[in-house]
Amino acid sequence: MSQRQFLNTRESLVTDAIDGQLRTAGGRLARLDGYPHIKVVVRGERDPGKVALVSGGGSGHEPSHAGFVGRGLLTAAVCGDVFASPSVDAVLAGILAVTGKAGCLLIVKNYTGDRLNFGLAAERARAFGLKVEMVIVDDDIALPDLPQARGVAGTLFVHKVAGALAEAGEDLGTVTAAAEKVIAGVRTIGMSLDTCTVPGSPKETRITAGQAELGLGIHGEAGIDQVDFEGAAQAVRLVVDKLASGMADGPHAVLLNNLGGATPLEMAVLADELARSSIADRLTWLIGPAPLMTSLDMQGFSVSLLPVDEATERALRAEVEPAAWPGAHRIGEVDVRPLPDGLRPIRPMASDNAARRAFLQRCCDILIAAEKDLNALDAKSGDGDTGSTLAGAAHALQDALDRLPLADETQLLRAIGAELAQTMGGSSGVLLAIYFAAAGDASAGGHDRIAALRAGLERVQEVGGAAPGDRTMIDALAPALDALGDGLAAAAKAAREGADSTAGITRARAGRASYVGADKLAGHNDPGAEAVARLFEHLA
Amino acid sequence: MSQRQFLNTRESLVTDAIDGQLRTAGGRLARLDGYPHIKVVVRGERDPGKVALVSGGGSGHEPSHAGFVGRGLLTAAVCGDVFASPSVDAVLAGILAVTGKAGCLLIVKNYTGDRLNFGLAAERARAFGLKVEMVIVDDDIALPDLPQARGVAGTLFVHKVAGALAEAGEDLGTVTAAAEKVIAGVRTIGMSLDTCTVPGSPKETRITAGQAELGLGIHGEAGIDQVDFEGAAQAVRLVVDKLASGMADGPHAVLLNNLGGATPLEMAVLADELARSSIADRLTWLIGPAPLMTSLDMQGFSVSLLPVDEATERALRAEVEPAAWPGAHRIGEVDVRPLPDGLRPIRPMASDNAARRAFLQRCCDILIAAEKDLNALDAKSGDGDTGSTLAGAAHALQDALDRLPLADETQLLRAIGAELAQTMGGSSGVLLAIYFAAAGDASAGGHDRIAALRAGLERVQEVGGAAPGDRTMIDALAPALDALGDGLAAAAKAAREGADSTAGITRARAGRASYVGADKLAGHNDPGAEAVARLFEHLA
Repeated sequence: MSQRQFLNTRESLVTDAIDGQLRTAGGRLARLDGYPHIKVVVRGERDPGKVALVSGGGSGHEPSHAGFVGRGLLTAAVCGDVFASPSVDAVLAGILAVTGKAGCLLIVKNYTGDRLNFGLAAERARAFGLKVEMVIVDDDIALPDLPQARGVAGTLFVHKVAGALAEAGEDLGTVTAAAEKVIAGVRTIGMSLDTCTVPGSPKETRITAGQAELGLGIHGEAGIDQVDFEGAAQAVRLVVDKLASGMADGPHAVLLNNLGGATPLEMAVLADELARSSIADRLTWLIGPAPLMTSLDMQGFSVSLLPVDEATERALRAEVEPAAWPGAHRIGEVDVRPLPDGLRPIRPMASDNAARRAFLQRCCDILIAAEKDLNALDAKSGDGDTGSTLAGAAHALQDALDRLPLADETQLLRAIGAELAQTMGGSSGVLLAIYFAAAGDASAGGHDRIAALRAGLERVQEVGGAAPGDRTMIDALAPALDALGDGLAAAAKAAREGADSTAGITRARAGRASYVGADKLAGHNDPGAEAVARLFEHLA
Repeated sequence: MSQRQFLNTRESLVTDAIDGQLRTAGGRLARLDGYPHIKVVVRGERDPGKVALVSGGGSGHEPSHAGFVGRGLLTAAVCGDVFASPSVDAVLAGILAVTGKAGCLLIVKNYTGDRLNFGLAAERARAFGLKVEMVIVDDDIALPDLPQARGVAGTLFVHKVAGALAEAGEDLGTVTAAAEKVIAGVRTIGMSLDTCTVPGSPKETRITAGQAELGLGIHGEAGIDQVDFEGAAQAVRLVVDKLASGMADGPHAVLLNNLGGATPLEMAVLADELARSSIADRLTWLIGPAPLMTSLDMQGFSVSLLPVDEATERALRAEVEPAAWPGAHRIGEVDVRPLPDGLRPIRPMASDNAARRAFLQRCCDILIAAEKDLNALDAKSGDGDTGSTLAGAAHALQDALDRLPLADETQLLRAIGAELAQTMGGSSGVLLAIYFAAAGDASAGGHDRIAALRAGLERVQEVGGAAPGDRTMIDALAPALDALGDGLAAAAKAAREGADSTAGITRARAGRASYVGADKLAGHNDPGAEAVARLFEHLA
């Protein structure tokens, strides 16, 4: 199978990654000399008079757990290979390396392997006379009737609360009791649109398009439900419904975890939905959205809830060293400020003209009809949105027809420019806005229609820095305007020839196509030029 | 096309995401009241006596740019739709909202749309009498002969240096000159294994497995080279080769940017390679690895280099408010600490026995041969690694044969347990280790071979919490050991019946399968039980 990840060998993945992390930790972190079997990250400096916190488990959940080693959180992280528990010896090495007279708390997610390995290591460490306690996190509520619930992202709440108390110098009994209290209260459920890609294995395509898995694990285990996916609002509703039953009254902290492959945009949309959900009035503090307990590249998220009292809030908000902890932030309203003065140009009075209205409608319809074709053409060399950009402009212009000064051609050109400047993004949008604004100016200055349109084109070339032969819409528009004096049919023919000539221009000098290799351009018309040609052809 | 992203509508994606971000900003951030066309994020509080920094562009590059609004970085971010420049009005609104008497610097990536929109907005703002300067970032070196290089992740260096100076109260001329100095020095190149998924569009599968694109853009534009991909070391070598020619002598800061979809494991491996690359001796400070200027979910990275003097170092290291800035950390060696004492059990003396050596070899060969089949079986309900886990153990055991006490069965059982405890992760590893350790203990206590193996099984059930009927390897092993008194053929038959019975157990009570729905389990044997059955069958 072809390599599809930035790694060297599957065997060296975790050790290479830990070393990469340590090289830039500025002496804050160290590791034990036990590669490849013993992969333990420890704090560079620690106070043996304080309770040590040791966690860990299989890798593939980064930043968990090595990313949370540091003041205020973990003292050591024992890392297994991807999705595999670390060995008993590795856990024991971690315990022995960081446990002083104050003792050590092992924070273990409830998986058989972790339970066994950490449990056996704890036994061996106790045989050395060390004080070692162990807590098992089982926050997953996907399967409410399961005797052994999994430990997932809620583990971070345990790390944080126990970490704050340990840092504050509390004794092992107090830290352990606080961890157990968090474990008793924390509940998590996850949802994903895709599985994860285990290095060295082919990707499983278990989740089909349009489906989502609810209640899945963090090791690629299948979710307990496959559901039709209808968008972010529905996703949060499903997750919140699961969490709401059995949710305590009173304030909660919520942890919004990126399972790895969701984009920041998606995670922020989910945060927005969560802050407006049916349980929002009980959500006080948000941790995230952030990747905290990931499952490699899984495009999913999980939500963990923890009832909070004052002491828990204090612990959650205490400062920590690891940058991977995003802090706990109070959930509030969106702070909206008024727009500054000076934005709106004075609008001309609306007026009507049936012929111009019909003509504009027709131009817009032509561009809307071409959306898919132009997108497909643009996708050959760009981001595939030329058609959508133009169709969006056309829709906006149609919506604006009633407020345009249709009776006055000069005013109308300027108003179209202002309208496009108002509603469109994208370079074609501004270039069109400049085009119409400049044409309007020329019309006001007494030029006839064709001369005015030519003046617009000149201005576009000036500001945009493109000329004929650069593989832009100019290659169709310039000859069309030159021929327009001979009628629309002649202009359409010239536009078509110009657009088709762009397929032979393999070295663009302007626009996004200029970043693209010649082989990607050859044989395809420039989508902007194609749009111009289609417009004239359908008008003719 | 089916929805494959956590969003509501493509139209509301960016506004929903900004609101999600603002709800948890604790009053630190606000936005202008211009949705949907004007999407401007501003600092909640600002000092009009300090130079304002305004940046922005299309969305899809998060945390750029809204994630970098805050003390020490940007004053406002003007956000377009995904991969689309914001409108002139939006930029103008941003400028007007934050620009005081100290003036404003626009930091613009070199794309036609951004250049046009920010440029026109700057003109309009200047018409209000505001002091506005604009710099254009063109750090991409993918196409050295391009007249207009793109602006990519190196933009972050401009934000940071200009932000530190603006925060320190320097005037507009000084801040602008510092930004221009950074732009003159910074150089970036990116590499990706996959394209990005534009919301609402089908994913382009331009990059085939085993290939990588070098010198690609941040909007899905194709890279300038497609190369055979050979792993992280080669990827960094290709990128470093591009950067090395034309690299200044003296110390550099390096920014390692996640283009969105690379996992933290991959990014840490790349950091390790970079810190050991041919230019490592000139790399002093590392920013990242972190998502800084992403391209939605693109599985790629970019490396940006900036020559640094003392003033630049100070600016790069100055503290900032936005959590998305990962800080600048000095690149150093890996701090390796010695393993603690007490880890290694005392090893028995090695000894030989041809029959036992051959028997163990054969057992291991059987498990190695079954790797693929068992992985496939495990993938039906788990993470597909049972076969690899067992094969890995078998390989390790074969490697260890020469140091095992083959002549002494009691010692041998214990030593196999210690060996497996030493080399394996994974729950099956520890369970096997416990199994052999307990069998060795029983053998030492005078039990015969079958009784010793049964004692091992009892211990496994105790620690692992599983019983016959729970869909585990025990379902094959228990009947096999019961029948073993009648010979290997009888044991094999019993193991096969036991393994096949697991296909009918659709509600597992132990192990990972217990998290899986009944429909995922029905009709497939438990992979652990299947492994036991195959072992006995091939031995018989």
